[in-house]
Amino acid sequence: MVTPELFAAELHSSLTDASLSSMNFLNEVAQRFPEAISFAAGRPHEANFDVALIHEYLDTYCRHLAEAEGRTEEQVRRALFQYGRTKGIIHDLIARNLAADEDVVVDPESIVVTVGCQEAMVLTLRALRRDERDVLLAVSPTYVGITGAARLVDMPVVPVSSGDDGVDLDDLTAVVRRVRGEGLRPRAFYLVPDFSNPAGKSLPTSRRRELLRLADEFDLLLLEDNPYGVFRARGERLPTLKSLDATRRVVYLGSFAKTGMPGARVGFAVADQLVGDAAGGDPTLFADELSKIKSMLTVNTSPVAQAVIGGKLIAHDYSLLRANEREIATYARNLAQLLDGLERRFTGPSRDAVPRVTWNTPAGGFFAVVTVPFDVTDELLALSAHTYGVIWTPMRHFYDGVGGERQLRLSCSLLDPDTLDTGLDRLAAFITDQV
Amino acid sequence: MVTPELFAAELHSSLTDASLSSMNFLNEVAQRFPEAISFAAGRPHEANFDVALIHEYLDTYCRHLAEAEGRTEEQVRRALFQYGRTKGIIHDLIARNLAADEDVVVDPESIVVTVGCQEAMVLTLRALRRDERDVLLAVSPTYVGITGAARLVDMPVVPVSSGDDGVDLDDLTAVVRRVRGEGLRPRAFYLVPDFSNPAGKSLPTSRRRELLRLADEFDLLLLEDNPYGVFRARGERLPTLKSLDATRRVVYLGSFAKTGMPGARVGFAVADQLVGDAAGGDPTLFADELSKIKSMLTVNTSPVAQAVIGGKLIAHDYSLLRANEREIATYARNLAQLLDGLERRFTGPSRDAVPRVTWNTPAGGFFAVVTVPFDVTDELLALSAHTYGVIWTPMRHFYDGVGGERQLRLSCSLLDPDTLDTGLDRLAAFITDQV
Repeated sequence: MVTPELFAAELHSSLTDASLSSMNFLNEVAQRFPEAISFAAGRPHEANFDVALIHEYLDTYCRHLAEAEGRTEEQVRRALFQYGRTKGIIHDLIARNLAADEDVVVDPESIVVTVGCQEAMVLTLRALRRDERDVLLAVSPTYVGITGAARLVDMPVVPVSSGDDGVDLDDLTAVVRRVRGEGLRPRAFYLVPDFSNPAGKSLPTSRRRELLRLADEFDLLLLEDNPYGVFRARGERLPTLKSLDATRRVVYLGSFAKTGMPGARVGFAVADQLVGDAAGGDPTLFADELSKIKSMLTVNTSPVAQAVIGGKLIAHDYSLLRANEREIATYARNLAQLLDGLERRFTGPSRDAVPRVTWNTPAGGFFAVVTVPFDVTDELLALSAHTYGVIWTPMRHFYDGVGGERQLRLSCSLLDPDTLDTGLDRLAAFITDQV
Repeated sequence: MVTPELFAAELHSSLTDASLSSMNFLNEVAQRFPEAISFAAGRPHEANFDVALIHEYLDTYCRHLAEAEGRTEEQVRRALFQYGRTKGIIHDLIARNLAADEDVVVDPESIVVTVGCQEAMVLTLRALRRDERDVLLAVSPTYVGITGAARLVDMPVVPVSSGDDGVDLDDLTAVVRRVRGEGLRPRAFYLVPDFSNPAGKSLPTSRRRELLRLADEFDLLLLEDNPYGVFRARGERLPTLKSLDATRRVVYLGSFAKTGMPGARVGFAVADQLVGDAAGGDPTLFADELSKIKSMLTVNTSPVAQAVIGGKLIAHDYSLLRANEREIATYARNLAQLLDGLERRFTGPSRDAVPRVTWNTPAGGFFAVVTVPFDVTDELLALSAHTYGVIWTPMRHFYDGVGGERQLRLSCSLLDPDTLDTGLDRLAAFITDQV
């Protein structure tokens, strides 16, 4: 019998948190059944991965530094090799991208380049969480990454219903009032307005404007997370909250994991809020406060990784819509195939066999939600993986408490058409057998 | 008058922490006087920076995956592009490096690859800090990065005197007893045993053994930070604490910023401690607990950045001693020139003019400490930069409280011989004028 050096009960509470442990369970299932077709992973499609692109993007970025910015060879070498600026070195390129694709015009100084969007969330919540009175509001169901970031800084997450179209503004109002009535401070409200993970919902433009008005009324920051906005499958793109934000209420959380390359681990925050100083000094930029925290967390984001993303932005004239033309088409095709496939399998002639199976019809992104007439448990997931060879995600894991018991999330980003079809056959067999 | 959206008094306390604000002041001085010769920056020398190396290392790593590990082209592409293993993808290469250079033999599964050593510190402290009773002991003066990491997780840092040779073990004993007597839990003791930053001290081997014995006696983890151990200028290399660690008391914090390339931002933790489960389940590896925290902090370390470091390790047969032959010689030359230069300027014929100026004589690394007969303030630093054209670091900034008032730190890693000599002339003029 080996005596352990440490005990779980003496480590930070996030390590034994139920909702995060459940995500580990999901990963384990995926690892235990590698042959199963997975509708679980929200990973980008791999068709256009090519190692030569990494070399190309690096060279493109170095050429840009030399030619467009007039840096000497020594300065270019230093930019890639040496410790770099805490807020990042491709902030200007990101600002040009936001202007080109999102109609968001911001001073590059208000951008902090981060180690993926996850670090941007941690920086923001760490800055906002001063003491035990500070809480985060988050749309429910919510992305597990924001729950994790909140756990790391001991910040409670208070759910706000996503309603039918992304956010239930009446519930938001009620929650703000209730939380304040309890003596707590709702520091921000987190949401994914476009093709949300996990629900696949998008907030209509009118609701975006109402939400911004409410944020003003309640003196509330909005954390807009937008990893999927580029991937609209049908209809017109909607304006981001940040593009409508006349009063600096929105901290925009950006990710290049889906539009750039997951392996670069580059994301960013746009934090153009002013921070007042009690001593009456000049206000600082919230981005500069996030930068101070970053200096204690990761020092700076790898300049090599930033150069890869920077090179991709330059190569496509700063437009990720242009850079992702093939990917946008792939995801639109997959989503249509997923929704059509559900339609064919669960309505019409076969409908009697599997009654009360419904799903939403997202207009883009990676995710759709299926509602079934039985409880969707981790045990059923294990059965589905083992016996039917298909993996998905129980929606309950995205609720911090009650909700999603009879729902499962399907992601279609990583699959090819044939695999997707076979996966749907297996899923239909699994669901039919449970009813 | 613009109304700010946020107020500093409502943000996390680390943002207004005195010791961290002072580091910002130092950076500002360096930026305000770019023409001044800097003995402040602990950055690696730039002579061997070459963008072609990044391409070469990437290719070397990809070839290794294909040839040594038998991965298909698709698998190699996926390894670099896609989301990766949370604990990293070059853990096995790092384990080979530790065996080759440090006589440290560990299971690669006990290694977590991190975004620089800074993230390894944050992961470790976040895991160990459960509530307000948990404190960190740290050698004083100490590296500001560990202070920052501790502030981020609201963990008080209790100083332990570094004494004459790195750690005053009597003081460590007294501090552990006092802290426990106050009902607090000293969760770990942080130190840099080799060529410490900022003091340039190294712990003799006999002291290392005594320290390990004390750690056993006190049931205390040791956090061994070793960024400079490779850079011995004279004498025999000493064994790392981890190589002497028979009872898994040591969490080894590794950095490739000086030995690999700062721009990759890759570091690691070796955490082979067992973590017991109150429910009586199998113990887990502390590395796996750190990995859970990493999944909420940065998800994973950029595989592209890891590939660059991995390629460098492979290219030099896993030895950083071999990879850094030129750098080791450069730093040894610079340190000798620094110490000789101080000797020439502050002893002998000119000694009468500047009495009581003394300095230590590190056997390697980047740093030496000069003691002067006047108070070394931030104002004097600004004067030195402006009027004498030379920058250094007041040692008081590395003490979390009292200490170092009449000392300054000199770093010689980044300078060339001529600049170093001119810098010492300026420093001598500055010091002479203050006496």
